Amino acid sequence: MSTVIKGGTIVAADRTYEADILIEGETIAAIGKDLKGDKTLDAEGALIMPGGIDPHTHLEMPFMGTTAAETWESGTFAALSGGTTLVVDFVIPGPDGMLAALEDWHGKAKRQASADYSFHMCVTGWSKQHFDEMEKVVARGINTFKHFMAYKGALMVNDDEMFASFQRCAALGALPLVHAENGDLVAALQQKYLAEGLTGPEGHAYSRPPEVEGEATNRAIMIADAAGVPVYIVHTSSEQAHEAIRRARQKGIRVFGEPLIQHLTLDETEYFNRQWDHAAQRVMSPPFRDKSHQDSLWAGLSAGSLQVVATDHCAFTTEQKRVGVGNFTKIPNGTGGLEDRMPVLWAKGVETGRLTPNEFVAVTSTNIAQILNIYPQKGAILPGSDADMVVWDPKLSKTISAATQKSIIDYNVFEGFKVSGLPRYTLSRGEVVWSEGQNSQPRPGRGKLVERRPFPAV
Amino acid sequence: MSTVIKGGTIVAADRTYEADILIEGETIAAIGKDLKGDKTLDAEGALIMPGGIDPHTHLEMPFMGTTAAETWESGTFAALSGGTTLVVDFVIPGPDGMLAALEDWHGKAKRQASADYSFHMCVTGWSKQHFDEMEKVVARGINTFKHFMAYKGALMVNDDEMFASFQRCAALGALPLVHAENGDLVAALQQKYLAEGLTGPEGHAYSRPPEVEGEATNRAIMIADAAGVPVYIVHTSSEQAHEAIRRARQKGIRVFGEPLIQHLTLDETEYFNRQWDHAAQRVMSPPFRDKSHQDSLWAGLSAGSLQVVATDHCAFTTEQKRVGVGNFTKIPNGTGGLEDRMPVLWAKGVETGRLTPNEFVAVTSTNIAQILNIYPQKGAILPGSDADMVVWDPKLSKTISAATQKSIIDYNVFEGFKVSGLPRYTLSRGEVVWSEGQNSQPRPGRGKLVERRPFPAV
Amino acid sequence: MSTVIKGGTIVAADRTYEADILIEGETIAAIGKDLKGDKTLDAEGALIMPGGIDPHTHLEMPFMGTTAAETWESGTFAALSGGTTLVVDFVIPGPDGMLAALEDWHGKAKRQASADYSFHMCVTGWSKQHFDEMEKVVARGINTFKHFMAYKGALMVNDDEMFASFQRCAALGALPLVHAENGDLVAALQQKYLAEGLTGPEGHAYSRPPEVEGEATNRAIMIADAAGVPVYIVHTSSEQAHEAIRRARQKGIRVFGEPLIQHLTLDETEYFNRQWDHAAQRVMSPPFRDKSHQDSLWAGLSAGSLQVVATDHCAFTTEQKRVGVGNFTKIPNGTGGLEDRMPVLWAKGVETGRLTPNEFVAVTSTNIAQILNIYPQKGAILPGSDADMVVWDPKLSKTISAATQKSIIDYNVFEGFKVSGLPRYTLSRGEVVWSEGQNSQPRPGRGKLVERRPFPAV
Amino acid sequence: MSTVIKGGTIVAADRTYEADILIEGETIAAIGKDLKGDKTLDAEGALIMPGGIDPHTHLEMPFMGTTAAETWESGTFAALSGGTTLVVDFVIPGPDGMLAALEDWHGKAKRQASADYSFHMCVTGWSKQHFDEMEKVVARGINTFKHFMAYKGALMVNDDEMFASFQRCAALGALPLVHAENGDLVAALQQKYLAEGLTGPEGHAYSRPPEVEGEATNRAIMIADAAGVPVYIVHTSSEQAHEAIRRARQKGIRVFGEPLIQHLTLDETEYFNRQWDHAAQRVMSPPFRDKSHQDSLWAGLSAGSLQVVATDHCAFTTEQKRVGVGNFTKIPNGTGGLEDRMPVLWAKGVETGRLTPNEFVAVTSTNIAQILNIYPQKGAILPGSDADMVVWDPKLSKTISAATQKSIIDYNVFEGFKVSGLPRYTLSRGEVVWSEGQNSQPRPGRGKLVERRPFPAV
Ligand SMILES: [Zn+2]
Ligand SMILES: [Zn+2]
Ligand SMILES: [Zn+2]
Ligand SMILES: [Zn+2]
Ligand SMILES: [Zn+2]
Ligand SMILES: [Zn+2]
Ligand SMILES: [Zn+2]
Ligand SMILES: [Zn+2]
Repeated sequence: MSTVIKGGTIVAADRTYEADILIEGETIAAIGKDLKGDKTLDAEGALIMPGGIDPHTHLEMPFMGTTAAETWESGTFAALSGGTTLVVDFVIPGPDGMLAALEDWHGKAKRQASADYSFHMCVTGWSKQHFDEMEKVVARGINTFKHFMAYKGALMVNDDEMFASFQRCAALGALPLVHAENGDLVAALQQKYLAEGLTGPEGHAYSRPPEVEGEATNRAIMIADAAGVPVYIVHTSSEQAHEAIRRARQKGIRVFGEPLIQHLTLDETEYFNRQWDHAAQRVMSPPFRDKSHQDSLWAGLSAGSLQVVATDHCAFTTEQKRVGVGNFTKIPNGTGGLEDRMPVLWAKGVETGRLTPNEFVAVTSTNIAQILNIYPQKGAILPGSDADMVVWDPKLSKTISAATQKSIIDYNVFEGFKVSGLPRYTLSRGEVVWSEGQNSQPRPGRGKLVERRPFPAV
Repeated sequence: MSTVIKGGTIVAADRTYEADILIEGETIAAIGKDLKGDKTLDAEGALIMPGGIDPHTHLEMPFMGTTAAETWESGTFAALSGGTTLVVDFVIPGPDGMLAALEDWHGKAKRQASADYSFHMCVTGWSKQHFDEMEKVVARGINTFKHFMAYKGALMVNDDEMFASFQRCAALGALPLVHAENGDLVAALQQKYLAEGLTGPEGHAYSRPPEVEGEATNRAIMIADAAGVPVYIVHTSSEQAHEAIRRARQKGIRVFGEPLIQHLTLDETEYFNRQWDHAAQRVMSPPFRDKSHQDSLWAGLSAGSLQVVATDHCAFTTEQKRVGVGNFTKIPNGTGGLEDRMPVLWAKGVETGRLTPNEFVAVTSTNIAQILNIYPQKGAILPGSDADMVVWDPKLSKTISAATQKSIIDYNVFEGFKVSGLPRYTLSRGEVVWSEGQNSQPRPGRGKLVERRPFPAV
Repeated sequence: MSTVIKGGTIVAADRTYEADILIEGETIAAIGKDLKGDKTLDAEGALIMPGGIDPHTHLEMPFMGTTAAETWESGTFAALSGGTTLVVDFVIPGPDGMLAALEDWHGKAKRQASADYSFHMCVTGWSKQHFDEMEKVVARGINTFKHFMAYKGALMVNDDEMFASFQRCAALGALPLVHAENGDLVAALQQKYLAEGLTGPEGHAYSRPPEVEGEATNRAIMIADAAGVPVYIVHTSSEQAHEAIRRARQKGIRVFGEPLIQHLTLDETEYFNRQWDHAAQRVMSPPFRDKSHQDSLWAGLSAGSLQVVATDHCAFTTEQKRVGVGNFTKIPNGTGGLEDRMPVLWAKGVETGRLTPNEFVAVTSTNIAQILNIYPQKGAILPGSDADMVVWDPKLSKTISAATQKSIIDYNVFEGFKVSGLPRYTLSRGEVVWSEGQNSQPRPGRGKLVERRPFPAV
Repeated sequence: MSTVIKGGTIVAADRTYEADILIEGETIAAIGKDLKGDKTLDAEGALIMPGGIDPHTHLEMPFMGTTAAETWESGTFAALSGGTTLVVDFVIPGPDGMLAALEDWHGKAKRQASADYSFHMCVTGWSKQHFDEMEKVVARGINTFKHFMAYKGALMVNDDEMFASFQRCAALGALPLVHAENGDLVAALQQKYLAEGLTGPEGHAYSRPPEVEGEATNRAIMIADAAGVPVYIVHTSSEQAHEAIRRARQKGIRVFGEPLIQHLTLDETEYFNRQWDHAAQRVMSPPFRDKSHQDSLWAGLSAGSLQVVATDHCAFTTEQKRVGVGNFTKIPNGTGGLEDRMPVLWAKGVETGRLTPNEFVAVTSTNIAQILNIYPQKGAILPGSDADMVVWDPKLSKTISAATQKSIIDYNVFEGFKVSGLPRYTLSRGEVVWSEGQNSQPRPGRGKLVERRPFPAV
């Protein structure tokens, strides 16, 4: 069965043009004029873009004594409703090692996912077992390894461990990712503020200042450079971190930076809200920053020093957040964004003139696919590409609200944002999986694992 | 008549993949597996890349009392032999204005060119006539206007003139280009060194230090930003100029920088050569710089803060250069590079690991086509694109020499460079116009004018 | 007749210590314990600092069709009441040249001044006469020449004129000063905003954005570096200008930057005040900036990349300002500050912890005297120095108000500022010329000309 | 007994002037014209400057299994012969803690020192004992605590330990010092190069690249800023480290940087010398750098972003160095410089025009005394100051050679440097302790401990 999409304007990272798109099975068979297929989908003058890729999610993540409430079922459907057709989630090894954890993650995703998914593997320590397992992980289609410089006593690795793992990445053709905050300082500042009686959510922001992120970013880059491997900094939230990235890139070092849609549009005043729930719902790491950092992140996206917009979707209910009443260090860290990333980025980025529509496609999809080495299977509208697309209608608008979202969380950090620019249709491997106003439903088990090959070893 | 190219690997700015390419007439009809055509061209395992675009040439340019010896006939054939299928030349208005000059330039090109060509228009003063003619120039397919901040008393414009012209560009959807050197300082330094008895070619370098370029670059960017228009800095040769560009981009300002292949690979010690001819042959503006600047330029290409590699091909014979014996300010400014840009960039950029093959395509072709608004007619291997391609064979090698070049100049600034990576075939709109070892000949009149539409007005 | 100051703590640029100060005649004779003199002045536990030096004033300046209302009589007395014992004013040559203008300025000052004074000479064009007169000006005790890059059609000089004058400065051992704004752009932006019907004082700010200042600063530094002479940028008001200064200093170039007390503490929202008078009273060039620039300037003072705090005191009455109703380009440019510079800097700089008391002395007096080559005659409390001192009492406080000021202007841009830290006594060459609460009066004719010798020629 | 120095020109950090200096006992009693004393010392037209202070020495330091061969006796006399009248040495606590180590160090110094001395205390771990002892150390006249970020497994402290110690410093009014290299990376790189069979001294340089220093410098500054305390980076050797310092200072953070005379004048090619001994004699941490770093350091001294020139004098004999034959990690780290710092800095800094004589005094003496809180007892020529002075004769010259040095080491890293500018006399607390050509001898036991009071606690 084939489908032709007609009446749309294709927006790719490199150009904008009008053409029909012929889908055969799960992939794009042809792009051109007057194509014919069994069925026709009318784009009604809207834009057709590659389906969004969110390279940074934590669905059902076990963390800080609880488990992120957003499930693979709800999260991936929320993603599709917002134009995102692929999520890349982080596998966190437990005592049984990387492969067991991967099995666990894969099991949950397979049963529930409506959207395609892929995995990053976390490296949370260092030993011969880590060294050996990394090769097997790569063999199973994972070419990215994540390292936490924070969460001391839990996920954090030290500089020597990170250097060892980065060298291993270089040998395997894998890309290291880094959560960059100085974990020693964060832990010490947390204790300091608690000791001073500052127990509310604002303490979270105070204990993770931008300097602590900038420092760790700078350090991670130096270590990667010494290991001879590129590096990808997740959730770049501050000018300090961006400066470190820019400075390295200006020396010819290959570094990538990933601002989140939250940091681009929300600021630290959220933590000063008098309602504990409101503030705690926004607790994530790095925290939202002073507004001045937003200019830096937006400029980075247009200048090319930052490449990707993600969400770090790791969503807990208000109930879960309340574990941290009286002690901000107990508030589960994480916010949502999977559903709203693309509409919010369009509204705040494209409609304001900061980004062109082509740049929008680049940072939500194409650049990510290239960095993750799955381009042009994903991230492109090209013959042979998976038919993952979003028919994006700049004339559709809504006000974001927890009341109407697909996510199962009871609040939304973008509550009240007016956005225009929404998916009219979302297609995943050729099928319409979201259709505005048509009562689309989740289809657990439809999503497929996307394996990613390693890069040539350095 | 159709042709299929088989057996090659397509290298685009965004990816590398294997496929056949079907050419029908002048354009690419299809890309895919097992394509069939009337004829087959065997790529023999080589790479297939979009034909190079040189955005900066001065063929037969009347300048400094003489005329550049490289003709449209010799220059465009030299280009094709080196993989460049489109040159963009600068029209310099005389007393009769822009339109008359355009006619003049067009006439020369039409008769002689083997490769396609397009034009930039120079703005060398300001008046109501300039204001009015700019609109007509845009209507004739030119969307770029060049401004000289140097060559005082000749081509140079002042800040108020530049600001007026930039605002006009903004209104017309045109992109201003700038030759950025402080002309007042250059003129004064020239007089100073001459007065001190320093008359040789090294005086050329001393009188145009990198600071003078950095200053003008910084100024041009400020003026463009005030006019609300992007700006393109031609022949960015120094860290000082690159720094100004980077600093602006980091604020979200749209600025483009164009290093030349000469500045990437040659340095100022050339001017200290004891042979006057050798040194004078290298006299161009900006002059070659201290080696340390090269690292800055290469890093800019990989970081994305510089986007384009050009040549500023403006080639005079040794005889012509000798007008400046005893007074370096009389040496006609200009060097060649049109024929060697791509081989030299491949050898010094890709083979050294500084640039990926995809980045090579981006900076020699794709980025340029996008900036000049002729993408994907040019700069791409996509269905519908002009079939301008180079079959690039990394195994072909040669030693560059004036003795064997297509250019009619009697020397070559890259003399003795060993390069591997050369065109096996060059195709212009579907025809093989250069074939390694097949005694290809110029075909004057074959080249066509490429018109370029304006951008949406700001 | 000798005087001993007892009971104070001496604050110098390099240290803080307790000692008596013996004054004999006009100079300091000794510093030490248990000194004896004919008279004793009790410092009552206050701080004793070198008298302030304001290196940038325009008393009775003929400008924009009128004359600054602050006279030499009122201005110098206002200065003394605020702890400033020396003002350096700008001589602006008319058609009769530099020497005639100097005579004119000197005449006015001599008759009226209560405080000591010195002169900078302005270079507002270039010719053999300028070249020749500069040497004579230096012989009369002026070692600084000011250049305006703005005020097109009036005071502005072009790059070639500036380069010529800077080279002359180098030869004479004089220091060039620069008002750095791109005059071409300012003039064009003024016309643009007027043409758009924006005629109010906010148009003044819009037509002189910080980028226009940053650009000119960068250019002035490049020209000075080419001329081989240090350079002093007056009224550095923005991060852009400060960045250019920092960048140059980091290369080892000798550049000085002078923020004004106004730019350190007031911001552009003043121009959006609904009362035309309020906004127009604040019109000066460069205009007040967005608050974010203040952090940059303060950091520059503590880091040493900016060295001096001045006022650019050029005060017009509200009546005079009203000439610009309906056309902001007619509003006489200038504000006051001579009386309030030191108290406001103490309140906003020292009491907030940004500057140490020693740094306060450095930027209000010592650094200036060194840069102007009159140290330690002025700017120091050392045996042999002129006995110019202020007995500064951090416990004295007041609310600044036009109602109570010594300046004859009918408003004060610092109106309502609460300051603590005020002169208890001000001494000029050994005499108490201001005594808090003692009804001190101006003493026209008491002030003396301070001649300044050139530096060794470069 | 009093002495008058006549016939000299006093060079202070803030000015240059002619005067006599009257010394009574150990201090300066008066400065002025026509002073009289029991004895006269004729400066013979030379310059009189405050005695040099070397803030960074390791005399008889137990390190890497041996003990630095330069003794307190030889080292302090070498210092005096080169114009340095005060050395500040690092006490390294052993198992018995800080106070015991201080006693040990003090004992050795007291018996042997010809010059005055003072101590820094090292913090090489963290515990309640460290917390408690720091207060007692401050009470004994030490206001500076040193932290090593390198020498893993030996002296190195982690980020949490450093943060704890820095906070303690803040509370005690002490200044933290930091040896900034990433110890994890250094250790891993050492193992990597050894494993690759690279065992010679050049491996030392490769395993400690400038990036490793820049990273640690950046981190130390962040931690100090979080602790609310200024920080002093010892032996700043690279643009990377200097950049981190500059960047912080430009935000208003109080950071000091200390280039060594070695890094200002020697470069990494020394390690490529074919003679193992030659290379090993130069092994120190950080290692000498690529020449390009020298420009950065010199510019920092003139711009004020670096404040101090030291030596890190830690001198081992060639015999001692040979322990590392076959394994560069065993070569005792350290070079000499105490004797040559001032002559070499004068020759390479002042005579080349990079520094003024006043800046020379600032960076060799005055700034150091201010930072260490012993100004103007030391670092100044002022009434009441200790009579530590050097009569500096720019006309005296020599060629530096181990054959003629006072140091007991058998080589000299500045061997062959021609310097002009040497001490004619060195005075320590009023006594001539070095007299050019007069066969001056060490006077063990003459040197006194200089206690330094804490700053006001933050
Ligand atoms: Zn994270
Ligand atoms: Zn995450
Ligand atoms: Zn040019
Ligand atoms: Zn050109
Ligand atoms: Zn001004
Ligand atoms: Zn002024
Ligand atoms: Zn050290
Ligand atoms: Zn040391």
